[in-house]
Amino acid sequence: MNEAYGKLMDRVKDIGRMHAVEQLLDWDQETYMPAEGVKPRAELTALVSGLAHERLISDETRRLLDDASSAEDDHVAQTNLRETRRAFDRASRIPTELVKEIAHTGAIAKSVWAKAREQSKFADFAPHLEKLLELKRRVAEHVGYESEPYDALMDEFEPGARASQLEELFSKLGDATAKFLRKLMGAPQQPDASILTRNYPCAVQEQLSRHMAESLNFDFGAGRIDVTVHPFCLSIGGARDVRITTRYEEKFLPAAMFGTMHETGHALYEQGLPSAHTFTPAGEAVSLGIHESQSRMWENLVGRSRAFWTYHFDYVKGLFPEALGDVALEQFYRAINTVKPSFIRVEADELTYNLHIALRFQIERSLIAGDLTAGEAPEAWNAKMKELLGITPESDSDGCLQDIHWSMGIFGYFPTYALGNLYAAQFFEQARQDISDLDDRIAANDHKPLLTWLREHIHGHGQRFRAGELVQRVTGKPLSIEPFMSYVEKKFSEVYGLSA
Amino acid sequence: MNEAYGKLMDRVKDIGRMHAVEQLLDWDQETYMPAEGVKPRAELTALVSGLAHERLISDETRRLLDDASSAEDDHVAQTNLRETRRAFDRASRIPTELVKEIAHTGAIAKSVWAKAREQSKFADFAPHLEKLLELKRRVAEHVGYESEPYDALMDEFEPGARASQLEELFSKLGDATAKFLRKLMGAPQQPDASILTRNYPCAVQEQLSRHMAESLNFDFGAGRIDVTVHPFCLSIGGARDVRITTRYEEKFLPAAMFGTMHETGHALYEQGLPSAHTFTPAGEAVSLGIHESQSRMWENLVGRSRAFWTYHFDYVKGLFPEALGDVALEQFYRAINTVKPSFIRVEADELTYNLHIALRFQIERSLIAGDLTAGEAPEAWNAKMKELLGITPESDSDGCLQDIHWSMGIFGYFPTYALGNLYAAQFFEQARQDISDLDDRIAANDHKPLLTWLREHIHGHGQRFRAGELVQRVTGKPLSIEPFMSYVEKKFSEVYGLSA
Repeated sequence: MNEAYGKLMDRVKDIGRMHAVEQLLDWDQETYMPAEGVKPRAELTALVSGLAHERLISDETRRLLDDASSAEDDHVAQTNLRETRRAFDRASRIPTELVKEIAHTGAIAKSVWAKAREQSKFADFAPHLEKLLELKRRVAEHVGYESEPYDALMDEFEPGARASQLEELFSKLGDATAKFLRKLMGAPQQPDASILTRNYPCAVQEQLSRHMAESLNFDFGAGRIDVTVHPFCLSIGGARDVRITTRYEEKFLPAAMFGTMHETGHALYEQGLPSAHTFTPAGEAVSLGIHESQSRMWENLVGRSRAFWTYHFDYVKGLFPEALGDVALEQFYRAINTVKPSFIRVEADELTYNLHIALRFQIERSLIAGDLTAGEAPEAWNAKMKELLGITPESDSDGCLQDIHWSMGIFGYFPTYALGNLYAAQFFEQARQDISDLDDRIAANDHKPLLTWLREHIHGHGQRFRAGELVQRVTGKPLSIEPFMSYVEKKFSEVYGLSA
Repeated sequence: MNEAYGKLMDRVKDIGRMHAVEQLLDWDQETYMPAEGVKPRAELTALVSGLAHERLISDETRRLLDDASSAEDDHVAQTNLRETRRAFDRASRIPTELVKEIAHTGAIAKSVWAKAREQSKFADFAPHLEKLLELKRRVAEHVGYESEPYDALMDEFEPGARASQLEELFSKLGDATAKFLRKLMGAPQQPDASILTRNYPCAVQEQLSRHMAESLNFDFGAGRIDVTVHPFCLSIGGARDVRITTRYEEKFLPAAMFGTMHETGHALYEQGLPSAHTFTPAGEAVSLGIHESQSRMWENLVGRSRAFWTYHFDYVKGLFPEALGDVALEQFYRAINTVKPSFIRVEADELTYNLHIALRFQIERSLIAGDLTAGEAPEAWNAKMKELLGITPESDSDGCLQDIHWSMGIFGYFPTYALGNLYAAQFFEQARQDISDLDDRIAANDHKPLLTWLREHIHGHGQRFRAGELVQRVTGKPLSIEPFMSYVEKKFSEVYGLSA
């Protein structure tokens, strides 16, 4: 480490702090800001994000980056230099005018999309989507890529991921899932999820959410839970101020209950990042995919397991005596593990969820490549839906208009959701090997062993390893679909009464 | 207005936005931030306030200020130029090193003070106070003044105020108050305030607070109420995002009820500032004294009036049937208007409150002038307390250690509290002349006429006029103690059964 490195880190920390301020501005806007605050809030957010951007792409940052160096065995400094260089290169390669045009186009597209989805009129949205695709292709050209422009976009969310590799992974995953799904659909023992749509008073659900977060060791001294329309997790001060949100639906228990466990999973990652490196890359998460692996692990591999409910069912039954008084543990366990092809991604079960992602990956990759026009998207979507899930949406609102991402010019983000599922299963398989009594611990509501394992193997490293390296390092193998398939096949075969 | 003026205003707005971000950081810290967030939060606050300071005192600001001009009849531009120049001059005259030393000394002094107050050991705090006095004297020398250094410090909070004028005002006020106080203390009809310390469940008080804020026309679409240890009012987006806080004491009804009305008064001022000039001086409040006039007017002249309670008493009685079931309106009205010399400023009644301020004004003025050493403060305090209020605190915790201000290096702030009371009475006297049925409107829970009057005569002007000018303009007279004395004499004579 030399003097330039020290100065660079001072700059990097200030940029990190500005991003933290942006997070607070966003959090407040979604939770407590009064309605009329929208206009001045937009000005504050634009100012702070502009300051962060300016400082990142400044000549001074370039100069310090060129001069900074670190010892070969100082992995913290190396991580910081690698990631600062990466952020600098990416941000400085994209012309500011293009960034502004995307923001402007996206703002219009978002409101057009909202209306188009309401009326299920994809044609109204198509020209805006085409325009955004064109702009994002230009971004990809500026950023640069080896084999295809989609990689340059995906790299923002999942550094190092390549579409050609994902194609292979998702294709195998799609085939295996579709095959297993057919078996399940014809299975003798079909679960009944209708008990989950009974009446669950929101005030009691709120108590349940806190209970679940506490049970998973969410640290309320370094975080909080609030209510928003769209749940999220963010940090306003490294590991020390991590906030999650949830949303309550009176007639659908899983929304808040599993939603809270999901966001708690994200939060446990943030609360486990190394505090010594807060506001620098070495103190940040690896990628969105790795982040999602933590949320999905706690939500699904832990939160929908038999062991977990062995402990918690009586408590939940006690909270909702009217809704669950006549329900047995086994019935409940099977209800929360119902698999059913459906149109809406965010409502999909653990198994079919990945098919929703495979579909989006294929379509947005073709859109960016220019092999598919925006206008052709609905047809391609419906055909793929039929192929993978065997169903066809009646309207585009239930099809290619359902997600907000494209209307904001976000392409290459969807794959991280499925990657999260795969990483989660592969990590969990390893954790199960390393912690011999993992199921017993979970059944005893003792989640510390798993959390300690995650802290040691994943959280504590910050951004030291790329996602691919991390998986290899932690599990001794590259990422594959096997741990996930083996997990779902075992679990759902049992739920559906199939011989394994 | 020329081009330089436009560019200057862009800069000024960004500085104003940075201050708004600081307000959000503060608000969040006091309301919802998790405990561990303190350390990263301090970093965020320091960054944002440093950025605002740098931008204000930069060469570019100086250049634009020198080049900027406005048309003679453009009072908005004139206000903006005058106040930006004022802020620039003040900030750029004080060496950054001195600002840092005060912050550092104050941080230590604050924690020493907290402990000294707890143990009532003034001697521990004295050297820190002496050091802060010395630093603030240096600030005064850098800022400059005509007749005495105290003026330079007070100017930060009440632009244009001069200690020599306040001395005259406060001396008259002290004499008149002390004289009237003696009459009251010997009056035949002494109110009984004990009903106010009965049991008032906090959850119900919360409902009452909202009711009071709504009744006074607080705009919840452009603001909110939360709970903090020390109540305050701040804005995160001009008139559009104004937040107040309150604190609930189960055994003391007035704390939250009048506290909320007080903060609502501040908020109504902020919500009435001209939105077109948000984030510039033309969209800001005149001074702390004028701000306090708004809070005290709604809290006391409206909120403790007979007219107000004619309407609201039944509602409040309905909320607290156990505490107030046996209480009549007249009894309640007299209880909330009890005058009694006491040691603690923040608990003082409407009349004796000003004596607490007169005392502080004299002592801190002498401290800054060097006529009194820090070590001599307790004795001077107790002597003055005896002289003005006729009582002597048993310990310095109830005396010169009670307030936090000096430990933070804040001198010249206290006078704005008493000025607020005087401004409030003088404005209200005028409002009563202009709104012939003011009492009837208040008794009908219709506070719109008074609010409209305040918006037109005070709020809507932003910072166009200095406090002294504003009072002269609105009431046709310079500030004097007569409206206040005439108001308290009339009101309390009646409450205490004295012939007027």
